Amino acid sequence: MNIEVCYTPQAYPLFHKENAIVVIIDVFRATSAIVTAFYNGVNKMIPVATVEEAREYQKNGFMAAAERDGEIIEGFELGNSPFGYMNNRIKGKTIAISTTNGTQAIEASKKAAKIIIGSFINLDVVCEYLLKQQKDVILVCAGWKNKFNLEDTLFAGAIVERLTNSATVTINCDSAIASKHLYGLAKNDLFSFLQNSSHRNRLAKLDLERDIKYCLTLNQCAVIPCMEGKYLVKM
Amino acid sequence: MNIEVCYTPQAYPLFHKENAIVVIIDVFRATSAIVTAFYNGVNKMIPVATVEEAREYQKNGFMAAAERDGEIIEGFELGNSPFGYMNNRIKGKTIAISTTNGTQAIEASKKAAKIIIGSFINLDVVCEYLLKQQKDVILVCAGWKNKFNLEDTLFAGAIVERLTNSATVTINCDSAIASKHLYGLAKNDLFSFLQNSSHRNRLAKLDLERDIKYCLTLNQCAVIPCMEGKYLVKM
Repeated sequence: MNIEVCYTPQAYPLFHKENAIVVIIDVFRATSAIVTAFYNGVNKMIPVATVEEAREYQKNGFMAAAERDGEIIEGFELGNSPFGYMNNRIKGKTIAISTTNGTQAIEASKKAAKIIIGSFINLDVVCEYLLKQQKDVILVCAGWKNKFNLEDTLFAGAIVERLTNSATVTINCDSAIASKHLYGLAKNDLFSFLQNSSHRNRLAKLDLERDIKYCLTLNQCAVIPCMEGKYLVKM
Repeated sequence: MNIEVCYTPQAYPLFHKENAIVVIIDVFRATSAIVTAFYNGVNKMIPVATVEEAREYQKNGFMAAAERDGEIIEGFELGNSPFGYMNNRIKGKTIAISTTNGTQAIEASKKAAKIIIGSFINLDVVCEYLLKQQKDVILVCAGWKNKFNLEDTLFAGAIVERLTNSATVTINCDSAIASKHLYGLAKNDLFSFLQNSSHRNRLAKLDLERDIKYCLTLNQCAVIPCMEGKYLVKM
């Protein structure tokens, strides 16, 4: 069982392996929102790369979510704030979703044998699942517009730490090693550690402290969304 | 003065800025070898992306160096071991050089206003130069075949640490923040910290412990190679 960390969607082709499980990570906030949506009873989601595609689904009667640069695109009822998905209206629904980074990461890794969605809020169930499978794992950080970001790296490090503590896991990937080191530095207080990170600042300007705290609180939602064809469904 | 760290040559276009100074980093071993070569009296070097180009220069009477996957390519007298350049034969010479990662990083960032060559062995003079210029800085890690690597990141972190200690430097780049954290963890014993890194293992198999120790020893060569047209020259 070999673990690698891919820091940006752009780099995914360098990591792609037949039969590996891909974990998509976009802590602030797409994968946190998706996990929250399934925890709150959404039936399916359809991740799409462009806002136009999301609009197309909307025209055809679907609920639709679209976010760019941290804000909901005009005309959509949902963005990538997890709090938008804590709502009875989403129960049983199918929601199309397009975000700045998270859905791009899904698109980039769509050739993977298995794609699951991870965030601090479902950390333990993701790790348990991966340990049970005993397959190679590629942790794909959504980053910020194909640049490395800190919060996704910390979550990747949390997974690496847990898996290397509990199994015969091989690491021959410097980004996995670095992620684990960084998580070791940060884990006692993720919030403070990220105080000066670029995206944290970006969100702070949008007054999203509540979202940030939620996204950094471990194991609130014991569900794993996964791709099944073009849909995200609850595993 | 804004500092960013670009972890792979592939990502450089996302970081490119008019007027920024680029520092090319390939600790194991291209930039360590290049710095050593200038310290030992080489006149010029010509970094080229392909082995074929290096061979072409060789046919035209130049000394030439070519390395792939850690080993000297057959038919060349030099690779990327710094010890190859501690030799009177290179004094005053112009040497064409092609390596697995380092010369690719130079090629990727060739549109930069200024390109200089850094490694632990010339750390302090590089930092002094950057502080004097007061321009934006992009630290470009050569990585390993466009994947993140640990040793180049640590050197980037060393620069970030020194610059942020001594000047009004702005950091709004998560990879710069992460590099500084990692260097903080590693700096008391770079050699041990890198014990399990991927490239360290790759080199260990080739029995290059002596090279590794040399490349991790700070400030042995107070020279800064820089690009001038197609040539590397001593600044």
